[in-house]
Amino acid sequence: MPIYKLLWSARVYDVSSPTPSCEHQKSLNPSPASYSVRFVKENIMSQESTQQRISAWAVTGIGEIVPGDQLGDVIVEACRNAPNGPLQDGDVLVVTQKIVSKAEGRMVEIDPDDPLSHKVLVEQEGVRVVRRRGDLIITETEHGFICANSGIDLSNVERGWAALLPVDSDRSARRIRDIIRAKLGVSVGIIVSDTFGRPWRKGLTDVAIGVAGVAAVLDLRGTPDALGRMMQVTEVCIADEVACAAELVMGKSNGVPVAVVRGLDPLWMRESSMREIVRPPQEDLFR
Amino acid sequence: MPIYKLLWSARVYDVSSPTPSCEHQKSLNPSPASYSVRFVKENIMSQESTQQRISAWAVTGIGEIVPGDQLGDVIVEACRNAPNGPLQDGDVLVVTQKIVSKAEGRMVEIDPDDPLSHKVLVEQEGVRVVRRRGDLIITETEHGFICANSGIDLSNVERGWAALLPVDSDRSARRIRDIIRAKLGVSVGIIVSDTFGRPWRKGLTDVAIGVAGVAAVLDLRGTPDALGRMMQVTEVCIADEVACAAELVMGKSNGVPVAVVRGLDPLWMRESSMREIVRPPQEDLFR
Repeated sequence: MPIYKLLWSARVYDVSSPTPSCEHQKSLNPSPASYSVRFVKENIMSQESTQQRISAWAVTGIGEIVPGDQLGDVIVEACRNAPNGPLQDGDVLVVTQKIVSKAEGRMVEIDPDDPLSHKVLVEQEGVRVVRRRGDLIITETEHGFICANSGIDLSNVERGWAALLPVDSDRSARRIRDIIRAKLGVSVGIIVSDTFGRPWRKGLTDVAIGVAGVAAVLDLRGTPDALGRMMQVTEVCIADEVACAAELVMGKSNGVPVAVVRGLDPLWMRESSMREIVRPPQEDLFR
Repeated sequence: MPIYKLLWSARVYDVSSPTPSCEHQKSLNPSPASYSVRFVKENIMSQESTQQRISAWAVTGIGEIVPGDQLGDVIVEACRNAPNGPLQDGDVLVVTQKIVSKAEGRMVEIDPDDPLSHKVLVEQEGVRVVRRRGDLIITETEHGFICANSGIDLSNVERGWAALLPVDSDRSARRIRDIIRAKLGVSVGIIVSDTFGRPWRKGLTDVAIGVAGVAAVLDLRGTPDALGRMMQVTEVCIADEVACAAELVMGKSNGVPVAVVRGLDPLWMRESSMREIVRPPQEDLFR
């Protein structure tokens, strides 16, 4: 059975292509893709030689982060040697929002005994309340994220403090990526991750809120499936999937704020931004 | 810095516990948890010895699946030897919905030149239309999933055929798990995965639609964070996160229908079902 190996030509922007018909898509919303894809068909002789394999591990030994810390430097020091490193070209580092917010001074003092002081902050950080029930507030942030409490975080921060979302997590990711490239000489991707709920399904999952050096969304339009038919699934959010893989090793309670994911398709490594993920309101059926 | 290591006591059901306040949660909906958690605090001497690490790989060499195939047997044969196996206790195998539907004969003939024949099927398989725009239909299925086209799939199936969702993917997962245990003597978890869209964010991600032998949702209530405060995030959907990790190695176009994820917390291995994930309508703010 021939295997179709994809060559992502992510830099070939094709803004002129029409929005595809949604008849055969599983996407929840029609959306024009932001970049196009070329593919090459290769008849792989041995399946074994092409088996895809990834690994992910928690970066240990990162201490408490305080405002002013340069996260890139902290990560460089933690990843110089085993077991966290050395890093390789194509590794993707997932960094939790919490330490990005701390390093960038996005900490706000609140009265820990007054729930109202938290609530005021939530409304201040949201541009729109999407749903409200009891104490729960779902808001849209100025980044375009829709999440509980405007993404404001009270766990893993000192009592009396709240962590706001970074102002621009793409920029935060790029800064970390650039420092790692400068100091360790490797080209890595960075995903800033946070933990969001979602409609219809219980349990939270990690998602990307900032990206650098790794694709956020892959566009598979024009790609044949294994039977040579056009793909039904046309856009895959690999940044969210990598954030999920990383969460499995970071856990929620032990405060490990960085993980490395190794073995991703090298063709996914490219410039990117959260604009690939945030769905414009006019394309969204659920606001 | 002491690390808090969690001991999931997943069998201790605690249906009497009240729904937690949502004030400090990031969950999009209040929801009583289905099981409780005990934890033990351990002062780990060396962080390095506890570094969490997972790996995931695509299972190669699985041929075309046809109705009547026993998937457990197919996977057992594929995973007996390297590079796919041998399997170990605690491995989680992610199996795509497509081959489960094929093996279970959930294939329906449609007129490939008449989009209407697909549309009729979509409405037939949905219990409710949630949103409709142009050709796109978001429905709720009888499983309680909310997804495009009632989860009906046209890619990677022969032209003129559509794959319906399995009737009971938990049961499908249990059957595969039981065959692997019987024939290979290892206890693995099984996740049946599908690719769903979601509101607000572009790009699709893989999710669990059936589980066996591995937790679907972890409940972290009562668990302290790294600073000793109560956790803000209380429920994590690890089944969806594992499905995402697997998707990164399976890809969408090369038709690899099974992946192995190794290295997950052994304490996550327990009986489970999709009832942990599907949010009851009365708890949902987005229907």
